[in-house]
Amino acid sequence: MTRFKITIAYDGTAYSGWQVQPHNVSVQQTIQDAIHTITSETVKLHGSGRTDQGVHARAQVAHFDLTSKSGKDRKYLLKSLNAILPLDIRLTAIATASDDFHARRSAVSKEYRYFIWNGPILPPFLRNYRAHISKPLDVAAMNKAARYLVGTHDFSSFTANPNREIESTIRTMTRLSLTRRGPEIMIRAAGDGFLYKMVRSLAGFLIRVGWGAEAPESAVSILAAKVRTARVPTAQPQGLFLWKIDY
Amino acid sequence: MTRFKITIAYDGTAYSGWQVQPHNVSVQQTIQDAIHTITSETVKLHGSGRTDQGVHARAQVAHFDLTSKSGKDRKYLLKSLNAILPLDIRLTAIATASDDFHARRSAVSKEYRYFIWNGPILPPFLRNYRAHISKPLDVAAMNKAARYLVGTHDFSSFTANPNREIESTIRTMTRLSLTRRGPEIMIRAAGDGFLYKMVRSLAGFLIRVGWGAEAPESAVSILAAKVRTARVPTAQPQGLFLWKIDY
Repeated sequence: MTRFKITIAYDGTAYSGWQVQPHNVSVQQTIQDAIHTITSETVKLHGSGRTDQGVHARAQVAHFDLTSKSGKDRKYLLKSLNAILPLDIRLTAIATASDDFHARRSAVSKEYRYFIWNGPILPPFLRNYRAHISKPLDVAAMNKAARYLVGTHDFSSFTANPNREIESTIRTMTRLSLTRRGPEIMIRAAGDGFLYKMVRSLAGFLIRVGWGAEAPESAVSILAAKVRTARVPTAQPQGLFLWKIDY
Repeated sequence: MTRFKITIAYDGTAYSGWQVQPHNVSVQQTIQDAIHTITSETVKLHGSGRTDQGVHARAQVAHFDLTSKSGKDRKYLLKSLNAILPLDIRLTAIATASDDFHARRSAVSKEYRYFIWNGPILPPFLRNYRAHISKPLDVAAMNKAARYLVGTHDFSSFTANPNREIESTIRTMTRLSLTRRGPEIMIRAAGDGFLYKMVRSLAGFLIRVGWGAEAPESAVSILAAKVRTARVPTAQPQGLFLWKIDY
C-alpha cells in the first residue's frame, strides 16, 4: 500500500460541494472516479475538510491509498488524471505520504479567503468568484470587529449548526483580517480549524458591520451569547476559497 | 429620437457570439430583448463589431435609438437593464450620443487583448478566459515577429475568409506586442480595424513562432503571400477579449 497526498484546485460552481452525495455530482466523487479509471482501483479520497456547493478551492488537500504499482510514476499519474478530469478540477501536485498522514487529522492550520466585489457593477468574469455588495463597506470598522474574533473562542454563534460538532465548538483563529484594493475586498481567515459554514458566517457578520448595521464591538456580545441569530447571516458561497492547508 | 451609446462587458462562453443568429443565443439579441422589456421599444443594437462564440468583451460599444422618453433617466435605465440581464452580460456605462454617432463607423481605433496561460496546469478559474499552451513559448521571438506585422498591410494571410471583406483587406495595426508575467502571456493588438478572425490568426501564428515552428522573419513572407495557409492557425476563442474602442 502506498499513501498519496494530492493538492487540488477546483471551481465549485458546478458541484454539489466536496463531499460525495447521492444523486449529486461532487468534487470528491469526480476525482475518485478519475483515479478508478486510471488505476483500476476503487479508492476513498479523504479531504482536509468539506466545502459547500459553490465554494471553491485554490489548494484543497486529500489523501488516498493505492495497493497496485499504478501510482509508481507520479508525474504520469498527475498528468493522466488531469487529462481525464474536467477543466474545473485540476490536481496541482501529487506526493507520496507516510502511512499515518491524514489530510484532515494531520492538518495544523487552514486558511480561507473570502472575496467581496464592493462596487456597483460586478464584472461578468468574476460572477462565480465574488460576493457582490454594491453598498460601500467600511473596511476599517470590519477590521476592528475582526480583531475581537481572533483568538480561542467558542464559535457557536458563527456556525450554521453547532449540534453538528460532536467534539467541541471551540476553535483558535490566528488571523481574521481584511484588505481593500479598489472595489475588491479580501477577508483572510486562518486557524486550527473552522466549524460548519463558519467562514461564511464571519463574512456575513463583517458585511453587516461594514454597512453600519452592527457596531464592531457587537462581536464581543455575539460571541459570548453562543447562539446563532439573524445578526450573523451566512454570506454567499461564491466568494469563498479554501486557500491553504498547513501540515 | 434619442441615440444612446452603451459600453458592455460580457463573458462570451455561453453565447453564439455577439451577432443575432437564428436558433442561437447571442449577446446582441439578449441586450435587445432587455431593452424591449424595460422600454417597450423594439430596437436594433449596432455593435462596434462582432465577436465570435466564446470570445469576451471588456468594453464593447454599441448604439441604439429610443423614440419614447423611457431613456430620459439614464441612471435608472442602466440599473434596470442590469437588473434583468444575465450576470454574464453587464452594461458598464450608458450615455446619450449625437444622431450621427455610429458604434462601428465612428470608431477611430480598437484594441484587443489575447491571453495565454503558458504553464503545465491551467487554473480552473481561468479555463474560459485563457488559451492554454503548456509548451514553453519564447516571448522575445514572438515580439520580434510581431514587429514585422505592425503598420499598414494587406492582412489577407491573417483572416479566416478574405472574400468576406467587401471593401478592402488592408488595415493599419498600430500595436502588436507581448508581455509575460509568470505563466501569463498577454498579446495587445490595436489598430484602425481588424478583419474576420484576424486577432486569433495573429495569435495562432505568434504561438507557432513562440514554440519554434516558425522563424520571426517568416512574418514578412507570410504577409506578402496574401494567402491563408496552415502556417497561420486560428487560436482558441476563449483567450480573446475585445478590450477598448476609441472614438
